[in-house]
Amino acid sequence: MATLLKLFPTCTRAGRLAHLSRKDWAQSRRGTLLPCFPASQRCASTTSYLTVEMDDNTGVAVVTMKSPPVNSLSLDFLTEFSISIEKLEMDRKCRGVILTSGLPKVFSAGLDIMEMYGKSPEHCAEFWRAVQEMWLKLYGSNMITIAAVNGSSPAGGCLMAMACDYRIMADNPKYSIGLNETLLGIVAPFWFKDTMMNTIGFRATELALQLGLLHNAPNALRIGLVDELAPEKEVLSAASTAISKWLAIPDHARQITKSMMRKPTIDRLLSHRDQDINNFVSFITKDSIQKSLQVYMERLKQRKT
Amino acid sequence: MATLLKLFPTCTRAGRLAHLSRKDWAQSRRGTLLPCFPASQRCASTTSYLTVEMDDNTGVAVVTMKSPPVNSLSLDFLTEFSISIEKLEMDRKCRGVILTSGLPKVFSAGLDIMEMYGKSPEHCAEFWRAVQEMWLKLYGSNMITIAAVNGSSPAGGCLMAMACDYRIMADNPKYSIGLNETLLGIVAPFWFKDTMMNTIGFRATELALQLGLLHNAPNALRIGLVDELAPEKEVLSAASTAISKWLAIPDHARQITKSMMRKPTIDRLLSHRDQDINNFVSFITKDSIQKSLQVYMERLKQRKT
Amino acid sequence: MATLLKLFPTCTRAGRLAHLSRKDWAQSRRGTLLPCFPASQRCASTTSYLTVEMDDNTGVAVVTMKSPPVNSLSLDFLTEFSISIEKLEMDRKCRGVILTSGLPKVFSAGLDIMEMYGKSPEHCAEFWRAVQEMWLKLYGSNMITIAAVNGSSPAGGCLMAMACDYRIMADNPKYSIGLNETLLGIVAPFWFKDTMMNTIGFRATELALQLGLLHNAPNALRIGLVDELAPEKEVLSAASTAISKWLAIPDHARQITKSMMRKPTIDRLLSHRDQDINNFVSFITKDSIQKSLQVYMERLKQRKT
Repeated sequence: MATLLKLFPTCTRAGRLAHLSRKDWAQSRRGTLLPCFPASQRCASTTSYLTVEMDDNTGVAVVTMKSPPVNSLSLDFLTEFSISIEKLEMDRKCRGVILTSGLPKVFSAGLDIMEMYGKSPEHCAEFWRAVQEMWLKLYGSNMITIAAVNGSSPAGGCLMAMACDYRIMADNPKYSIGLNETLLGIVAPFWFKDTMMNTIGFRATELALQLGLLHNAPNALRIGLVDELAPEKEVLSAASTAISKWLAIPDHARQITKSMMRKPTIDRLLSHRDQDINNFVSFITKDSIQKSLQVYMERLKQRKT
Repeated sequence: MATLLKLFPTCTRAGRLAHLSRKDWAQSRRGTLLPCFPASQRCASTTSYLTVEMDDNTGVAVVTMKSPPVNSLSLDFLTEFSISIEKLEMDRKCRGVILTSGLPKVFSAGLDIMEMYGKSPEHCAEFWRAVQEMWLKLYGSNMITIAAVNGSSPAGGCLMAMACDYRIMADNPKYSIGLNETLLGIVAPFWFKDTMMNTIGFRATELALQLGLLHNAPNALRIGLVDELAPEKEVLSAASTAISKWLAIPDHARQITKSMMRKPTIDRLLSHRDQDINNFVSFITKDSIQKSLQVYMERLKQRKT
Repeated sequence: MATLLKLFPTCTRAGRLAHLSRKDWAQSRRGTLLPCFPASQRCASTTSYLTVEMDDNTGVAVVTMKSPPVNSLSLDFLTEFSISIEKLEMDRKCRGVILTSGLPKVFSAGLDIMEMYGKSPEHCAEFWRAVQEMWLKLYGSNMITIAAVNGSSPAGGCLMAMACDYRIMADNPKYSIGLNETLLGIVAPFWFKDTMMNTIGFRATELALQLGLLHNAPNALRIGLVDELAPEKEVLSAASTAISKWLAIPDHARQITKSMMRKPTIDRLLSHRDQDINNFVSFITKDSIQKSLQVYMERLKQRKT
């Protein structure tokens, strides 16, 4: 990966895609944003938070998250992420995505607490809709989606990984993954729960969600939260190996099958989307919850100092 | 546990709580039934079938079933049990319950066959409603519920354990747990099945219910019917250790999460409760089923002699 | 088994049962089709594709599939199969069925592609209804059904095995089982998926269906797609041993329990049966899918030559 980046340095910074309309984005794409390297059949683009490298030979794009320090899922990050996935979805040459982190030790630390602390209900609602959108895009993608989990992946980071078709995690017991919301005094919504149930079953989900369990890599493999472990430096190449098996399957049959499996879960959110936003906003803006978040953030700060 | 009981002997026998109105019970509580020991912050009460020891320091109550010879779930036992759980549920200081047996070798032998054999339809209906009530109270409890399964736990005893949040079983292959109803020629109702499916999944439930499987402790652990094994004399202390992890989670977040997981299963019984009673009564009062029960009871008697 | 067949040679060929009306069949049964051997209490019948041997002592019928070269599920085969199962279902003496193959190395190769390639929509519809019927009869059977999977069992063959109550597979890593439809560019319908989910859970099904996974025998055991492995020559005797445990359970309790587990899945097909046929016909008659089938068949021919 490091080599790849050296060979094909990103072309230009995209600015805040979050604030681009779809038309803007389409134009930018025809322009300098996604220059192609015909010789190598590789295209790369970099935005504020993501690098997208498309290999036209394989039809696989590597999406690398780079939002220091810990790839927190802020409103801007999520908007950019959803636009990038949609872009790839519409790209006929793109059949698969490998999602990974460009930061050390962390895949994604999950939802950005700053988007929920001391913010207006309107802002919280906009943020939550962006979280939903990220999941809808990823869980419902027609593309093959492989998570190369090369670091810790709590809460929203775990959701992101679970929304992919296949998960490979760095074989390092220091890295952990899980929906640990209850530890912060908050609650994973029903579609987080549904996604986890579809991954590890009812009972393991009941335990994991109530206790806010963060599973280290070997445990995550044991309970099926990830599908495979790979040496830390080989997570991305293991993802490339894994995706080749998926690429061997005719797309239309795979896509119909994937939709058959996931559509009921997706439909459940779609038919309760506004209600889910309202629930989130009224919960997160409660004084007691705001205090929990404050305590949590102060603890985080103390750890750093 | 033995030490605990010596230090804080039960104060007075409560008589048949089943026949106490809630008002009676509230009064009795203010009276001598639940004396507190301020120094140690421990309260204890004993009724006909149960000992309840509350530790105000931890917020954990130990509920010990003591209905010789095998903690059969009779109508009176179930009524008393439900009242005790409700009492603890309403006690703001109580955050968790450890449910265990005070009898050797058995957690609970399950539903008392004498309540179904040769009884009027009205009695059977009252009995079945009490079975439902026990499950509703336990499966839907806001408290942390840990089953310290220190002996065999067939049929209704297994249901009781499965309704808790976490199960620790004595590591003795002579002890077994499972829904063995078909062996008696009877059928576990849909909410027994739902509870088992939520614990060990569809396929394992299909096998277990059809064959009336009783799993010994190691097998029960292997298929996930219990979560942990402990040496026979350390089941209760293992339960105390386990519950401390649950107590570390903010109650409101854990409770909402638990409800999100279990509410659909609970609602299914609530919306079919009378129908389920009717089904049970018309099934159990059939001549053929009454004969099955008779044969079974005679076999039990022969074993004893 | 070989001995059994020598001792009790099949009596007469039944011709194409598929074209017999039920009345014809009833008459044929009273005639020479199902002669009994009172001394041994064994009855045997052979039709074009199946041998049915009933042991009145145990109440177990062994149904042996013999449609060379690979027990493809053609329209005629399926029709005959469903009639045979229905016959046994109506036979009060028959409590259980062991389903196995009389051909080497294969249990069943699955749906006969010739019934879907270059055929009229009407024919495809008739064929698909027969596939549904086979599954409905087997998955919903009141009898104990044990699959003695003594060879490979892809696609429809896997469905057949999964529709039984218990699966024993020959312990030979060369034999594989799974729903590999996507490899052919086609899609397993929702009730194939439901049956697999009821067997191995959501996540394993999602992976298996999308990748068209064929699991070798040890892997099939590991993920729960089969329940037991037996040495290749002992699969049938292992099935006899296994079924004795099921026979020990009172039929009525086992049947009600089985129905409680499987009815929702069966009802789902029953209430969408015509729609499912329409889906299949419009999908399979597409030019692109017909071409996929052609390519697949040519590959099969090349392998043979």
